[in-house]
Amino acid sequence: MAETSDPKTVPYRKQLLVRFADCDAAGIVFYPRYLEMFNSLVEDWYRDALQFSFTEIVTTRGWGLPTVRLEVDFVAPSVFGEYLSATISVREIGTSSLTLDISFQGPDGSDRVRGKIVLVLIERRKHKAIPIPHDVRRRILKFKAASPNSTRSAALAKKSE
Amino acid sequence: MAETSDPKTVPYRKQLLVRFADCDAAGIVFYPRYLEMFNSLVEDWYRDALQFSFTEIVTTRGWGLPTVRLEVDFVAPSVFGEYLSATISVREIGTSSLTLDISFQGPDGSDRVRGKIVLVLIERRKHKAIPIPHDVRRRILKFKAASPNSTRSAALAKKSE
Amino acid sequence: MAETSDPKTVPYRKQLLVRFADCDAAGIVFYPRYLEMFNSLVEDWYRDALQFSFTEIVTTRGWGLPTVRLEVDFVAPSVFGEYLSATISVREIGTSSLTLDISFQGPDGSDRVRGKIVLVLIERRKHKAIPIPHDVRRRILKFKAASPNSTRSAALAKKSE
Amino acid sequence: MAETSDPKTVPYRKQLLVRFADCDAAGIVFYPRYLEMFNSLVEDWYRDALQFSFTEIVTTRGWGLPTVRLEVDFVAPSVFGEYLSATISVREIGTSSLTLDISFQGPDGSDRVRGKIVLVLIERRKHKAIPIPHDVRRRILKFKAASPNSTRSAALAKKSE
Repeated sequence: MAETSDPKTVPYRKQLLVRFADCDAAGIVFYPRYLEMFNSLVEDWYRDALQFSFTEIVTTRGWGLPTVRLEVDFVAPSVFGEYLSATISVREIGTSSLTLDISFQGPDGSDRVRGKIVLVLIERRKHKAIPIPHDVRRRILKFKAASPNSTRSAALAKKSE
Repeated sequence: MAETSDPKTVPYRKQLLVRFADCDAAGIVFYPRYLEMFNSLVEDWYRDALQFSFTEIVTTRGWGLPTVRLEVDFVAPSVFGEYLSATISVREIGTSSLTLDISFQGPDGSDRVRGKIVLVLIERRKHKAIPIPHDVRRRILKFKAASPNSTRSAALAKKSE
Repeated sequence: MAETSDPKTVPYRKQLLVRFADCDAAGIVFYPRYLEMFNSLVEDWYRDALQFSFTEIVTTRGWGLPTVRLEVDFVAPSVFGEYLSATISVREIGTSSLTLDISFQGPDGSDRVRGKIVLVLIERRKHKAIPIPHDVRRRILKFKAASPNSTRSAALAKKSE
Repeated sequence: MAETSDPKTVPYRKQLLVRFADCDAAGIVFYPRYLEMFNSLVEDWYRDALQFSFTEIVTTRGWGLPTVRLEVDFVAPSVFGEYLSATISVREIGTSSLTLDISFQGPDGSDRVRGKIVLVLIERRKHKAIPIPHDVRRRILKFKAASPNSTRSAALAKKSE
């Protein structure tokens, strides 16, 4: 608890543009594309904030980081051309697994998508879980949720279960 | 309850081929593509079994059928070239909403993906929920889960929550 | 030349459904998705007609079949829910390369997309061209264009160059 | 000709990251994803350099900018995690149509993809070509190729025809 209440913990934030390619015939984001955005966001977070790129994980080490569970609420539609504010915060970290809260907000700050995903670090050849390296774990902890905002989002996620 | 125990209710089944386009650099299905498969499966079910095609819903009527919630367990990876057995069964039907259990099994019958999705029928212009038409509702009920198999899958889904 | 004028040579044909996932915010097929359809069509042709599946090529043998050149005319838009008639015919076959004419027609028989793609069989590790196996070559020749229809499509492609 | 030899004309340049989602089971960019990158690049160029966003074109004005012809040479594969240098230069501008040279180069400056695409500005409801607005045309001309580099790429494109 001590570490989670560290006032310096912050979520990872990134702006995303809703592209033509993301939208469906109804003119709004096609939901599987949100999941592609989730994946790219996690990819960016690993590379930029955790200094442990997917390229190193997948190509250099022969490991993998599959998503094993996903819960998403599509709260309101996003339209072509909008900028969304994406946020990742860490909910839980186990030996090999990582539970993330991901949310996208519209330009007016209202929620568009709220998700929770569970990732597991594996050795690909044997398809077996392996421990998250210590230095990566230390960096991950900086994003562990403790702010009122993340509590709210945890509460919302709870409610929807 | 009477209607759900109707021994003639059956899930909707379809064979899916894992295509080159579905796989990622790790040689397995990229998870957002599973969600695209979910969407195509629901599209096929609506057209073939419910006789209420997305074309009619979206193009003719100006309605929409957005996915508002999604829970998925990615149990085991699927590789390029495999045929998956996809199954839809109805868990709940509300006035405008529909909760579906979707699962994909590998050629050996083992689970690959187990998901639950909630869809809502809306009038697109006002983005407002509208009642599922009676004849469509009647056809949907034929797929309402009551078999031991679907009970098992509900139990599994429960456990993973 | 004798073999190409074989009256029994026929194009490979397949029906394709324009899915929700294929359409963009303008309600028509997003052009990169046509290329994904091209790829899936070639995948189906290899598996079903040439008995040389991508799985065998890529997974078993460690080979690859990259597209090295592409020319496509997007003649008219296709809308969500339409069935397109897809056709592959062989324009040229070299030692390692294969030039295909691919066309998609709408329900009324009018052209939607006309493309020419060049594929090369390679050994992936060395990224080096390798000869197309004899039995596969023999099956490919059955699809070599000689019919008036394919001549027409070649003429059209010519005109557009 | 005077305007095309304007020494201040420059191509539009952008760095692109090859993402996990872009790669196929062979670990390299799946070619339809290159076309999606083309589309996003054109989208960025219109918004950032031409000040005529797709959102304005598609959503506000009810127009469209379909790609009507495409020629692409996939010169060498790109792998996951690479940064590509993307370049757009204008080859020709007609009343309603625009021919662009698009190329992607790897980190070592070698060509990966060289393409030519033809776009047409249309009024969507009637699916009829409309003239490119004057101010947009003026901005487009700033990207008309006249540099040795673009001549070379035009020559290469020519050779491959």
